[in-house]
Amino acid sequence: MTRDRADTLIVNGLVITCDSEDTVLENGWVSITGGKIGGIGTDETAETPEAVEIIDANGCIVMPGLVNSHTHLPMSLFRGLADDLPLMEWLNDHMFPAERTYINPESVFSAALLSCAEMLLSGTTTCCDGYFYEDRVAEAVHTTGMRAVLGQGIIDFPAPGVSDPEKNILHASAFVEKWMGRSDTITPSLFCHSAYTCSERTLKEAKASAGRHKLLFQIHAAETKDECGQSVADVGLTPIRYLDKIGILDEKTLIVHGVWMDEEEMTILSASGAKVAHCPESNMKLGSGIAPVWEQLGAGITVGIGTDGCASNNDLDMFLEMDTASKLQKVTKLDPSVMDAGTVVKMATIEGAKAVGLDHMTGSLQPGKEADIIIIDTKQLHLVPMYNPFSHIVYSAKGADVRDVFVSGKRLVKDRSLLTMDAEQIVSKFYNNGPVAIK
Amino acid sequence: MTRDRADTLIVNGLVITCDSEDTVLENGWVSITGGKIGGIGTDETAETPEAVEIIDANGCIVMPGLVNSHTHLPMSLFRGLADDLPLMEWLNDHMFPAERTYINPESVFSAALLSCAEMLLSGTTTCCDGYFYEDRVAEAVHTTGMRAVLGQGIIDFPAPGVSDPEKNILHASAFVEKWMGRSDTITPSLFCHSAYTCSERTLKEAKASAGRHKLLFQIHAAETKDECGQSVADVGLTPIRYLDKIGILDEKTLIVHGVWMDEEEMTILSASGAKVAHCPESNMKLGSGIAPVWEQLGAGITVGIGTDGCASNNDLDMFLEMDTASKLQKVTKLDPSVMDAGTVVKMATIEGAKAVGLDHMTGSLQPGKEADIIIIDTKQLHLVPMYNPFSHIVYSAKGADVRDVFVSGKRLVKDRSLLTMDAEQIVSKFYNNGPVAIK
Repeated sequence: MTRDRADTLIVNGLVITCDSEDTVLENGWVSITGGKIGGIGTDETAETPEAVEIIDANGCIVMPGLVNSHTHLPMSLFRGLADDLPLMEWLNDHMFPAERTYINPESVFSAALLSCAEMLLSGTTTCCDGYFYEDRVAEAVHTTGMRAVLGQGIIDFPAPGVSDPEKNILHASAFVEKWMGRSDTITPSLFCHSAYTCSERTLKEAKASAGRHKLLFQIHAAETKDECGQSVADVGLTPIRYLDKIGILDEKTLIVHGVWMDEEEMTILSASGAKVAHCPESNMKLGSGIAPVWEQLGAGITVGIGTDGCASNNDLDMFLEMDTASKLQKVTKLDPSVMDAGTVVKMATIEGAKAVGLDHMTGSLQPGKEADIIIIDTKQLHLVPMYNPFSHIVYSAKGADVRDVFVSGKRLVKDRSLLTMDAEQIVSKFYNNGPVAIK
Repeated sequence: MTRDRADTLIVNGLVITCDSEDTVLENGWVSITGGKIGGIGTDETAETPEAVEIIDANGCIVMPGLVNSHTHLPMSLFRGLADDLPLMEWLNDHMFPAERTYINPESVFSAALLSCAEMLLSGTTTCCDGYFYEDRVAEAVHTTGMRAVLGQGIIDFPAPGVSDPEKNILHASAFVEKWMGRSDTITPSLFCHSAYTCSERTLKEAKASAGRHKLLFQIHAAETKDECGQSVADVGLTPIRYLDKIGILDEKTLIVHGVWMDEEEMTILSASGAKVAHCPESNMKLGSGIAPVWEQLGAGITVGIGTDGCASNNDLDMFLEMDTASKLQKVTKLDPSVMDAGTVVKMATIEGAKAVGLDHMTGSLQPGKEADIIIIDTKQLHLVPMYNPFSHIVYSAKGADVRDVFVSGKRLVKDRSLLTMDAEQIVSKFYNNGPVAIK
């Protein structure tokens, strides 16, 4: 009997697969062949394959790369630019002017690189993004090797790179055409900003375009109470009911935020197959509200976790987002048993992959899937002792504990250092001669 | 004119003093002489002193060490032992049995060392603790050089090391006597667990003992809704009103948690001068409730921030606690302008120092105070660009970004490594032959 031969073999790890059986293997191995997961096993259950490269994960958790189901990559440019302000003042007096002044093809490219670097170093291998100059975002993401679902922003106002809103869908479609099948790690998508910034016609046309290509349709909805009130005043329906009525909701629709919804709306969402991207830290920081995530899960809705853009978070660390997602539901319900760590880990992996339409290729460690894998170093002061790895992933680990990161079997982070990017150069670009206090 | 001469001089930093004028100095220096802060200035405002040792803080924030106003150091032993469980099941079926089985003088010492190591590496220079075998906690803390207010736990039940509850105050007083003036960095305190586990006589005697020595009196109170209901059923008053009635509240009393209180109780607390230790992550994880912190601050109450013990958090990182403290108030009020970053940074420094009774020596960078200083490396991917350092401290930085830590001028952490402890040895002690999954 000859042993299987793999390109790479990760051994001696505590392997958390996030598969449908929640398989966890102590002293486990994961093999990578041709960028895909070849096999998974333990020394006890199967003969370990041979491999060109052996990676020792002793003292480590080996798990699927995290899926950040909602972000705006270039907004790292505005990290901490304006905090602690009322939402409309933040948007109108700071974010929109900053976008008008600073958002251009070059800054979008650089800031997207910065965000990818932060994400990869903190264990995120897939993100779902929407912004302007998305073509430049795609170019940046492509150079990093990270996996992403990317959508050119559609909004019925003049926007960076799209001065004539009449052409917003044209721009978005051109982005889709360009990036369909162009990069192994990039999946194009359509991203309408919201029902309050896009007309019914725009929403329908964009959704139809997404449908033609079987692509994900992303949209912010039911983020704030005011938005819902305004929607009822404008069209006589809450955002979710309105989107349902005009035919936007189906299994390829991703509702971003979904904070304000009642039981009936959850039933509508669940029946439609639409997914939700839950962004707890952004919802908290902007004072938007607490999403009924536990009820959404109970209604059978697929919910992923997202950081949102850096300007409303202010980081892209999915470990902290998992921690907050769990704790926020517990305190809202006054029940520590809801949003258990195991559920949250799946939301940040396989459920997130489902939410962004990539669960056929990522989100769990299963033979045949892309080898999107992270290795977490648990031999650290703040991670000992360990009784339950799920608890540690959600409540104790941080992005900085991620030692190695693979996307499609390619090692992008090794011993906490980026292999496909020059971290120092990126930092220098954004670091202006020492810290600057503008207050 | 001769220049002043200091032992150590930290230069080129963005100095955040947390003094009463909220002084922030770009390109600032801080000098240390005889363990105390000698001076603070910028190249523009004053001549920089000479020094034996020069530390370059270029690209860094220099600020007071953080004050963790409530923790149980030895509970790092139970990090993640039992999560996602109803509170009483967690306490009765897991924590209490685990304490009976595993808490002993040796484990308390080791686990306290582990917690101090985690705290120092994440920028906490002062903590306020209460537990059993507190003498062993004190010995551990003393060896590390960390500053702490420590109280031997008082509870009217048999407890680890105190089999006869009749002797609980005797034990606590003996601890106080032993540690009064014994260590430069340790201040003894009295710690009654709660009004529901201590009789009125116990509470009064313990408070009287604390009063005689002018020491801090710590007590958990108003943590859960059930506790408050039970208190009304038992003594006809809510915990805060009861403690007020029996004379426990004064400016040397620290109310830990203070989640459930109405306006009148805040007025009572404010008038008494009693302080509050706010532990948002623990309150969230245990499903206890959301403390009315913004109202407490408005009522003029001094509120510090604490992590609580590791078993209900599950880490001791004060940066994450600041982040959560801010965001939780914002989302509760649906107002992003409350709990601004500047306020939160002061809660984790000078206000925390006031809460634990050490503001005469720590919590701000001011000449004459102990040199408890941390240096945060902001030249990192997740900390650029920087527009406002307070925003970065609260919303973007993590404990792992702390480069150097000084307590009373002694460097305890250098380039992210502990100087007074063997980190590897501590980790090994708690790391049992690879990660263990008990689920």
